[in-house]
Amino acid sequence: MKRLEIDLNYDFSNPKLLDTALSHRSVGMNNNERSEFLGDSILGFVIADQLFHKFPQADEGQLSRLRASLVKKETLADIGRQLSIGSYLKLGAGELRSGGHARDSILADAVEAVIAAIYLDSDYQRARQFILELYDSRLQQLTMTKGQKDPKTRLQEWLQSQKMELPVYEVIKSSGPQHKQQFVVSCSIKSMKVSTTGEGESKRKAEQDAAENMLEQYEQT
Amino acid sequence: MKRLEIDLNYDFSNPKLLDTALSHRSVGMNNNERSEFLGDSILGFVIADQLFHKFPQADEGQLSRLRASLVKKETLADIGRQLSIGSYLKLGAGELRSGGHARDSILADAVEAVIAAIYLDSDYQRARQFILELYDSRLQQLTMTKGQKDPKTRLQEWLQSQKMELPVYEVIKSSGPQHKQQFVVSCSIKSMKVSTTGEGESKRKAEQDAAENMLEQYEQT
Repeated sequence: MKRLEIDLNYDFSNPKLLDTALSHRSVGMNNNERSEFLGDSILGFVIADQLFHKFPQADEGQLSRLRASLVKKETLADIGRQLSIGSYLKLGAGELRSGGHARDSILADAVEAVIAAIYLDSDYQRARQFILELYDSRLQQLTMTKGQKDPKTRLQEWLQSQKMELPVYEVIKSSGPQHKQQFVVSCSIKSMKVSTTGEGESKRKAEQDAAENMLEQYEQT
Repeated sequence: MKRLEIDLNYDFSNPKLLDTALSHRSVGMNNNERSEFLGDSILGFVIADQLFHKFPQADEGQLSRLRASLVKKETLADIGRQLSIGSYLKLGAGELRSGGHARDSILADAVEAVIAAIYLDSDYQRARQFILELYDSRLQQLTMTKGQKDPKTRLQEWLQSQKMELPVYEVIKSSGPQHKQQFVVSCSIKSMKVSTTGEGESKRKAEQDAAENMLEQYEQT
């Protein structure tokens, strides 16, 4: 654990907080699910704040997409691997057998829980500093390219690069009065037999949401 | 504007920030969409932090549901009405004609943008204080009741109270390898001809998500 604290560049006053942050729900009551909820929200704010200042020209949709790429499970799991967090995780017997300490979702949750643990052990400013250290190179490398292109364009380009046919969008449902209609749209790639759905207050927004959901499943970042 | 600053209990060093926060996208370039993105994330964190400490026994799902009820559009719009924010909004001609200053989504966005404006004008601590003042009575009145019951139970109870038939849940899609399967489930109320979808890593979670989405459309809080 001391080794991990060195890697985290943080020395816990209350090491029990770190212990809980590394405990998967499969070990029982005292697990990291609550702190993951808290850590996720701190992370969301700190990253939103950074992006807001770094990209003064970006609109809300671009900022949202940039943030989503930074806080998604796969990115957090990569950060967890860089910190070798997997070797400190406490897992139940079933998860241990099935290789839980290498699983993206478990690593990502632990990283968020560690963020919360540092926040609870110190304060907002210190947690913010920790997050900025974690994300230093990713934030520096970040360009608008990823945020600039909307999900439908990115999905189309990705499918073309894989020599696959284009997705089909269909309105499944529209509801609500005219000034606040809500659309549900499906995005299907027939040859892969997959489809996702998206929601939005316009057909276009629902399509973008469905495309984004498709990308989340198949795109590696 | 000075009147509003009194109601907000906040005196802006840079009043342009407040001006932008009150400008709907229908007025043009200098609008509140970016600051709404930032304000939403500050709000999410401050509320998560409060709930985390107020309900030490609540699990992650309960905390998420409690937060969702506090930061949803309808709640934010109510707060906006209490602050009479509608009368300070800057709207384009079309939105003015169609009563935009009374619309939930526009009021909610403005409240989030005002939170960001105070953050940008001062710092995190001051924005946090502002949010806690806004939510003071709501946080005090909050009990676990709402968070304790899961969405499927709440939907069922609500439909029974309306003497309507129970919803039907159907798996639309499951995808991904076994240890990280993803389910899409629909929730339909036949007599109302409405359905929603939900996603999750288990059938149960996807059903809860679909029920939650149904409640969001029909339940008043």
